[in-house]
Amino acid sequence: MNLDLIAIGDELLIGQTLNTNVYWMSKELNHIGFNIRQQITISDSEEAILDAVEAALSKSDVVLITGGLGSTNDDLTMPTLNKYFGGELVKDEAVYEHIEEMVTSRGFEMNENNQKQAIVPNNCKVVHNAHGTAPGLWFEQDNKIVVAMPGVPYEMKGMLSDIVIPWLKERYELPEIINQMVYTQGVPEAKLAEVLADWEKNLPSTIKLAYLPSPGRVKLRLSSVGTNRKALQGDIDLEVEKLNQLIPTHIYSEETEDLGSAVGELLRKNNATLATAESCTGGYIAHLITRVVGSSDYYKGSVVSYANEIKMKKLNVNQEDIENHGAVSQQVVEQMALGVQQKMNTDYAVATSGIAGPDGGTDQKPVGTVWIAVATPAGVKSKKYLFGKQREVNIERAAITGLGMLRKEL
Amino acid sequence: MNLDLIAIGDELLIGQTLNTNVYWMSKELNHIGFNIRQQITISDSEEAILDAVEAALSKSDVVLITGGLGSTNDDLTMPTLNKYFGGELVKDEAVYEHIEEMVTSRGFEMNENNQKQAIVPNNCKVVHNAHGTAPGLWFEQDNKIVVAMPGVPYEMKGMLSDIVIPWLKERYELPEIINQMVYTQGVPEAKLAEVLADWEKNLPSTIKLAYLPSPGRVKLRLSSVGTNRKALQGDIDLEVEKLNQLIPTHIYSEETEDLGSAVGELLRKNNATLATAESCTGGYIAHLITRVVGSSDYYKGSVVSYANEIKMKKLNVNQEDIENHGAVSQQVVEQMALGVQQKMNTDYAVATSGIAGPDGGTDQKPVGTVWIAVATPAGVKSKKYLFGKQREVNIERAAITGLGMLRKEL
Repeated sequence: MNLDLIAIGDELLIGQTLNTNVYWMSKELNHIGFNIRQQITISDSEEAILDAVEAALSKSDVVLITGGLGSTNDDLTMPTLNKYFGGELVKDEAVYEHIEEMVTSRGFEMNENNQKQAIVPNNCKVVHNAHGTAPGLWFEQDNKIVVAMPGVPYEMKGMLSDIVIPWLKERYELPEIINQMVYTQGVPEAKLAEVLADWEKNLPSTIKLAYLPSPGRVKLRLSSVGTNRKALQGDIDLEVEKLNQLIPTHIYSEETEDLGSAVGELLRKNNATLATAESCTGGYIAHLITRVVGSSDYYKGSVVSYANEIKMKKLNVNQEDIENHGAVSQQVVEQMALGVQQKMNTDYAVATSGIAGPDGGTDQKPVGTVWIAVATPAGVKSKKYLFGKQREVNIERAAITGLGMLRKEL
Repeated sequence: MNLDLIAIGDELLIGQTLNTNVYWMSKELNHIGFNIRQQITISDSEEAILDAVEAALSKSDVVLITGGLGSTNDDLTMPTLNKYFGGELVKDEAVYEHIEEMVTSRGFEMNENNQKQAIVPNNCKVVHNAHGTAPGLWFEQDNKIVVAMPGVPYEMKGMLSDIVIPWLKERYELPEIINQMVYTQGVPEAKLAEVLADWEKNLPSTIKLAYLPSPGRVKLRLSSVGTNRKALQGDIDLEVEKLNQLIPTHIYSEETEDLGSAVGELLRKNNATLATAESCTGGYIAHLITRVVGSSDYYKGSVVSYANEIKMKKLNVNQEDIENHGAVSQQVVEQMALGVQQKMNTDYAVATSGIAGPDGGTDQKPVGTVWIAVATPAGVKSKKYLFGKQREVNIERAAITGLGMLRKEL
């Protein structure tokens, strides 16, 4: 079953916005068995939209469109699709009420633009937008389907996951596609590939393998296509089992890329609590932990000690150690971890101190030098790392590595 | 001058790889004056490549292709383009020598795959690949240009910047393109459009306007195309000036989307320091501030007080107020802001306390309720917000709104 994706928006064409929508949608739609034939990005113009929809429908069964559904004059998707499918624009009462509720709950009054968004083509099904005001539109013609959704990522995601995918699954009998992820942390891609070379060579030909690296982590994807989901999953489970024997300490999850959530599950299982003390990661570890639902059950808080005086006042770090060894040192990072563990009265604590860059490096401590400590009920462990030159990547790698060190203690 | 981009690769279509190439290329090519007509991603198949090239050439003057130029059997771009342009495959001595040099310098010997990469169509110009072994291909026919480049980002980037863009600039007289951004915060898109309706109606026809919303923010883009860069920029500056009179408090930058950086600049200019006390945003505000280069100059740190005991112990929040009003209340959030301001001895402080969700809401305080306070040298201000139901979006909106409230005090 072929599916085309059309993204509408000049911001994508001029390289102002990275198209993460199409990436996310492709993954979700491939997962439920669609063959994504092509992804196309076009401008906010009637001609471009009409051409793209016509071309997509000539080759594919399903066409999903994102973008250009807002309430301002540069948004042309709705009137253009209405023209293409020959409908009439009418006010939808349910949509109007939903918009009114959203607008007033945010303390604004309904204006002309808001009212305009309740006007929809009369020959489509409206797709409810739980997270925004612009409704989605589901058209069917000649046994083919065209769905238009907003370009705002969280609005589109909610709509696709909660409504469009269930409707598509009801409508089509799709093949089974399994993409089993195995999330690893702490080993670079090339090294991992070396360790797994023999295993990879002996993989059944029906299973495809991919290495997907990101800062501090490597994801492995095992995928296969067929009709019998149970048999496919059985074959893949066998290989994942072998992986667990080959690299037991490097795998942190088979369900979630989110290391904060994997660590959270372990804390919950151990009935243990956590605090953090962050210098170079500047609150990013706290964010990775607290974005997880229910994290308040095991996470007490963090001291982001950017200034040395805060390290001393709030974390009991010894002033002499800062003067003698510098803030980026084993002595300081271990005191930070122990200090926050004691002050917040938790079982575990993670602390970071490093030079995120791009400035502030020295010959002895170049940019990318990061000390990380983990305090446990049994004591404190610490390690020095040398990451790269890019500030944002260093912050992410330090945070992921800190969570990885904590995971190994849990 | 119209330009089409074609990306070739199954990893893009199944949502395994985020297409950053097309984002980067579009920005570079738009900057030198090309109009990117469309971006398309197709699979590694001869039929898809032929169709896409044919369709692109029927509408655009220049077509740039990335991907499918490797040395393995699934790489079809080179033979397919050779077929399309009716050339013959011949060995290129210069390419062969370059490949040999790269391969041997890495300690390997030339194998069959390496040798194959020196075989190129005889009716194209070869584009040197300084960072890899696969050569780029530059075809010209009927006054139109097709260039194929590898999909590996750093190989493509080197080729495009160092060779393809200079060649294109030599070949075409390109117009000047200006994209001026104006970043606003604190007003939803529909409301902003209402306030700006008259101004928008009176915009010169040469200036195009777009509204680009994201959680808590709306970007405005004013763009124009012409031959005289100075005149174009002058016209746009005039309109930005009008915007600054219409919505002075909502604009936070004309240079950067990064509100953390915009706030940082103001703090630096005022020679002022900042601390944060975060409950529901869980360190995310600290992260937005500290990911900015040089933020240690004005940022002292944060107390992420996820547990109530930390609010009391670390921020001097009154236990009775927590008991009587709850942690998500004006009383508590104001004490958090004042507490961290005093304890970290800073000029300003931001504090958040809210229900990020998806659980924990009540009738009186539903999920999405967030109190935000800003402490200044003159006192403390606070405001209650009602955001949505999605945890991650609530965290982002609360953080952006908190930074926006701080900005207005600076």
